[in-house]
Amino acid sequence: MRLVQFQAPHLMGPHLGLESGNGGGVINLNAFDPTLPKTMMEFLEQGEATLSVARRALAAQLPVLPRSEVTFLAPVTRPDKVVCVGMNYVDHCKEQNVPVPKEPIIFSKFASSIVGPYDEVILPPESQEVDWEVELAVIIGRKGKHIKATDAMAHVAGFTVAHDVSARDWQMRRNGKQWLLGKTFDTFCPLGPALVTKDSIADPHNLKICCRVNGEVVQSSNTNQMVFKTEELIAWVSQFVTLYPGDVILTGTPPGVGVFRKPPVFLKKGDEVQCEIEELGVIINKVV
Amino acid sequence: MRLVQFQAPHLMGPHLGLESGNGGGVINLNAFDPTLPKTMMEFLEQGEATLSVARRALAAQLPVLPRSEVTFLAPVTRPDKVVCVGMNYVDHCKEQNVPVPKEPIIFSKFASSIVGPYDEVILPPESQEVDWEVELAVIIGRKGKHIKATDAMAHVAGFTVAHDVSARDWQMRRNGKQWLLGKTFDTFCPLGPALVTKDSIADPHNLKICCRVNGEVVQSSNTNQMVFKTEELIAWVSQFVTLYPGDVILTGTPPGVGVFRKPPVFLKKGDEVQCEIEELGVIINKVV
Repeated sequence: MRLVQFQAPHLMGPHLGLESGNGGGVINLNAFDPTLPKTMMEFLEQGEATLSVARRALAAQLPVLPRSEVTFLAPVTRPDKVVCVGMNYVDHCKEQNVPVPKEPIIFSKFASSIVGPYDEVILPPESQEVDWEVELAVIIGRKGKHIKATDAMAHVAGFTVAHDVSARDWQMRRNGKQWLLGKTFDTFCPLGPALVTKDSIADPHNLKICCRVNGEVVQSSNTNQMVFKTEELIAWVSQFVTLYPGDVILTGTPPGVGVFRKPPVFLKKGDEVQCEIEELGVIINKVV
Repeated sequence: MRLVQFQAPHLMGPHLGLESGNGGGVINLNAFDPTLPKTMMEFLEQGEATLSVARRALAAQLPVLPRSEVTFLAPVTRPDKVVCVGMNYVDHCKEQNVPVPKEPIIFSKFASSIVGPYDEVILPPESQEVDWEVELAVIIGRKGKHIKATDAMAHVAGFTVAHDVSARDWQMRRNGKQWLLGKTFDTFCPLGPALVTKDSIADPHNLKICCRVNGEVVQSSNTNQMVFKTEELIAWVSQFVTLYPGDVILTGTPPGVGVFRKPPVFLKKGDEVQCEIEELGVIINKVV
């Protein structure tokens, strides 16, 4: 299933829906069952009960709103955590001349940086070095602490596409070298278009992943290049913190970012960035 | 006013209340006006409307629940952000032999690390170097971006006491020197006991601040030693991110932490940490 949060002119506020296939129209889940919550956070907190309603809706041949009539929101908004993993693709480590980490390197964005899959990324006047990073994002479905890697997938709701927009000047040289500020400007975390449930993906660690800037491919890899896979990341992070439904884990980016090009290339006003992952979909964000 | 979130055996779930003076009993705001929200986040989002109800309740000579009959929760739970400031006391910079920062250094905790003012701090088996840090915490009352320092106080709801519990091994030597993990273990952010509204504090930047471990004073300073004051911190942080009602800013710790003692001292099971700020109150957390 491809769960989405959306708005439409004839509906009040955000609604929950199902994308009818990658790039398809939207089935209004709240119209199918008015007792369903209207946010993904609440939907996920209710676990199997709400998921089974969504499955019934998918089987029920419901009306599909054309894509042109809906606005897609991020599939999850206001999660407790946006956990990010640094240097988690072997080739991305090589391009910056650093050894492959022996342990995951964890940093974060504030949830306030999340925007929808087709929203604009605002270039802040405070940075001159805003860069792209396509990433596979894991969305947690079940609460847990000290989760074993072998149990980790039971805590995953599904996956989505993330753009980990990064202001390199603030990440790498300012703020005492703490990455947070460079990663968490408003609009620096486009997500979507759908939360694709894990049962709908053959293998999340064998998906083509790519980023295009103005149509030109700048990152192209496969999630099989990840150093630490979903299960290991969940085991690692849950040593420190309780994971809650809706928590998002950005699993790191493949090579090809702008800052390590010679000469470096950064995003400018008017650029269009497309982040795409096989089976999950594509998010398209204009830089303004 | 001293706003609190509390529970009591005769009440279902968290409630909003007023502490009747520093260390006093609790007035049940939800009993006074059943239309009031039951969480501080929603209370703050409604702004002046709910604040004026609380003011009327305070004037109304209502029954006071004895302190022994209530459980205090953190005054705010599940905020969008817990923003932290590093090296923000002149003397704390001296004790670690680093220059006083020219710009605030910003890091974060996940909201999942927040616990109540008298809750236990759980010593994680993953760390051998858990340390104390008393801090003045600012709680945001009004949304804003690019807030000017001169306007900043209009965005503040009030202040509370925070304990920025810190695992120094993870903060300083592991995780690629990104501080996040060492700062964000579950229970590493006790807050409370009350959100003291700004109008009830003569000057937030002239308050005695101290930390005691097992009764012995280990940190003792005054918030007048802060390098960047509340107004400057809000102006700085809101360059990067929109601040929302309920967001918490931990403003840094004075000297006297354990890691810079010779030899270093760390918290152990059974220790009791008291963090106290003049006019705001004291939080007491046992280490287990």
